[in-house]
Amino acid sequence: MINGYAAYKAKEELRPFSYEPKELLENEVEIKVTHCGICHSDLHLIDNDWMMSTYPFIPGHEVAGTVVRTGSAVSHLQAGDRVGLGWQSGSCHDCEECNTGHENLCSSSRATCVGRHGGYADHVITDAAFAIKLPDALEAEYAGPLMCGGVTVFSPLRKSGVKKGTKVAVIGIGGLGHMAIQFAAKMGAEVTAISTSDSKKDEALAFGAMHFINSKNESDFAAYNERFDFIVSTVFASMNWQALVNTLKPRGELCFVGALGVPVEISAFSLLTRERKISGSAIGSPGMLKEMLEFAAANDVRPMIEKLPMKDVNTALKKVAENNVRYRMVLVNE
Amino acid sequence: MINGYAAYKAKEELRPFSYEPKELLENEVEIKVTHCGICHSDLHLIDNDWMMSTYPFIPGHEVAGTVVRTGSAVSHLQAGDRVGLGWQSGSCHDCEECNTGHENLCSSSRATCVGRHGGYADHVITDAAFAIKLPDALEAEYAGPLMCGGVTVFSPLRKSGVKKGTKVAVIGIGGLGHMAIQFAAKMGAEVTAISTSDSKKDEALAFGAMHFINSKNESDFAAYNERFDFIVSTVFASMNWQALVNTLKPRGELCFVGALGVPVEISAFSLLTRERKISGSAIGSPGMLKEMLEFAAANDVRPMIEKLPMKDVNTALKKVAENNVRYRMVLVNE
Repeated sequence: MINGYAAYKAKEELRPFSYEPKELLENEVEIKVTHCGICHSDLHLIDNDWMMSTYPFIPGHEVAGTVVRTGSAVSHLQAGDRVGLGWQSGSCHDCEECNTGHENLCSSSRATCVGRHGGYADHVITDAAFAIKLPDALEAEYAGPLMCGGVTVFSPLRKSGVKKGTKVAVIGIGGLGHMAIQFAAKMGAEVTAISTSDSKKDEALAFGAMHFINSKNESDFAAYNERFDFIVSTVFASMNWQALVNTLKPRGELCFVGALGVPVEISAFSLLTRERKISGSAIGSPGMLKEMLEFAAANDVRPMIEKLPMKDVNTALKKVAENNVRYRMVLVNE
Repeated sequence: MINGYAAYKAKEELRPFSYEPKELLENEVEIKVTHCGICHSDLHLIDNDWMMSTYPFIPGHEVAGTVVRTGSAVSHLQAGDRVGLGWQSGSCHDCEECNTGHENLCSSSRATCVGRHGGYADHVITDAAFAIKLPDALEAEYAGPLMCGGVTVFSPLRKSGVKKGTKVAVIGIGGLGHMAIQFAAKMGAEVTAISTSDSKKDEALAFGAMHFINSKNESDFAAYNERFDFIVSTVFASMNWQALVNTLKPRGELCFVGALGVPVEISAFSLLTRERKISGSAIGSPGMLKEMLEFAAANDVRPMIEKLPMKDVNTALKKVAENNVRYRMVLVNE
């Protein structure tokens, strides 16, 4: 029996819930959950904002824990291994995306807590390919947020080739943004943090940013004309995207990792005259997850977390909903 | 004395005009113009639509001709060489873009017929770096349109890595689009032509397209869901861009080479869940121009042209303005 906390209905508090897991498939592992981060996506799933929730379900997709059982075909993990599990817990392993190391883009991708039970529990089961072994130097309490928000910002920074001297801007200093600043700075970039709140400035600089722009002062953007090679936007609110595109150098890229509710409006002319790009990215493949964990462990990139016992899940969710966490909430199984 | 046809005032017919060229600089060449294509940009410059024209000026930036004089520092060209000259006729040769083979993105780029006299003339002078030697197999009458519209579509197709089996869509079957279809098909792509006019279908297929979509039937796009690796848009009118983005595969890219007058509206969510990109591109560097000319010569890619004597420039411009040319007008010095 697996015991956790489930949403029984949209917009209600979570309550204890137990379920008998299906028999472990040959490619699956069972993880004893030690920690599970809370992502805003969990709130959307609990509230059925995306019209894809089925109740009751146990949320949670920023899992860290220890393998307790392995299916017969699993050879890369064994009981006792410390692992992380993020948003994705399955793919077809047989399509163009899976065959080229882009499993996160598989159209048969399975999510850890959509239509199945996630990590606000004592155990969780997953396709073993998506349980990524934690580097020895990485503390388990930090692994969960890295597995979702962390890889979501690491992947586009990595793919865009950020290196020493690259000029990177990070929009939004929150759960994703504070990790983006650290990753980019540790890749060697000169990082500019962009936020609506001056209260985030000192922390942004502490995370590794060299410059800070308050995005409410739109006129400030003019001083950054054609400045950035790469901008990663972690925000959910709309902004003056055109002003931001104008801060991109020739061949620069603006990448959305935050799911805006309103369309982005951009002048095609401002793209074509400077060969700029607008892109989007979310989570990352198992290969990218492994690379990200190793990079974080080796370069001392850690999410800033607050911890609460798993039993206080509703208190924790409320705090996340109110944006009162700096910067990632982690539930701990005691 | 150089003799050509100049706009003396916005929206007026061109009239004969002669000017005494400055002394040839050490890095310049003088070209005896044999052919000059007409690009829509010339119409915009003549009418001062972009508020950057100074009168009188000789339009024309799709030049083919023969080198007649070379500056003292020019070693890669000599009198008698057949060359092409496109939109760009100068750059600083000393910035990050110039130093990395992206001279077309140099912020000090000089245009062949902006603030100086272009190719509707018997001679034109240019920075020799932008006079590209024509392959022997390429007829001069085709070179002009390749130097502007041709490279504008070739460059993004090349940079995106189009190869055998790549699924490419080309939006707009006109001066640019009819060359894009040919280039993509000759690179090995499976090309889909998208147009508002069924009357273009047969020609699109003759240029190498395998499929045709009439974009007025927006519901047809649904059958192409996640179909294309790369879409190049050559149109100036707005479309349902979101429907087109949805036809992109994971990691697919929609590239604008047509300067839309209205902003593009796209859901960021549709980019990030599939790692799609929106980009833009215009003209190409000297290196890309050379590669494009060699590719066209070797693979029998030719613009479809109509020719008129240079003295009939106003008739020719009128035909271009009325979109009555299939697909590129070329003025010939007889």
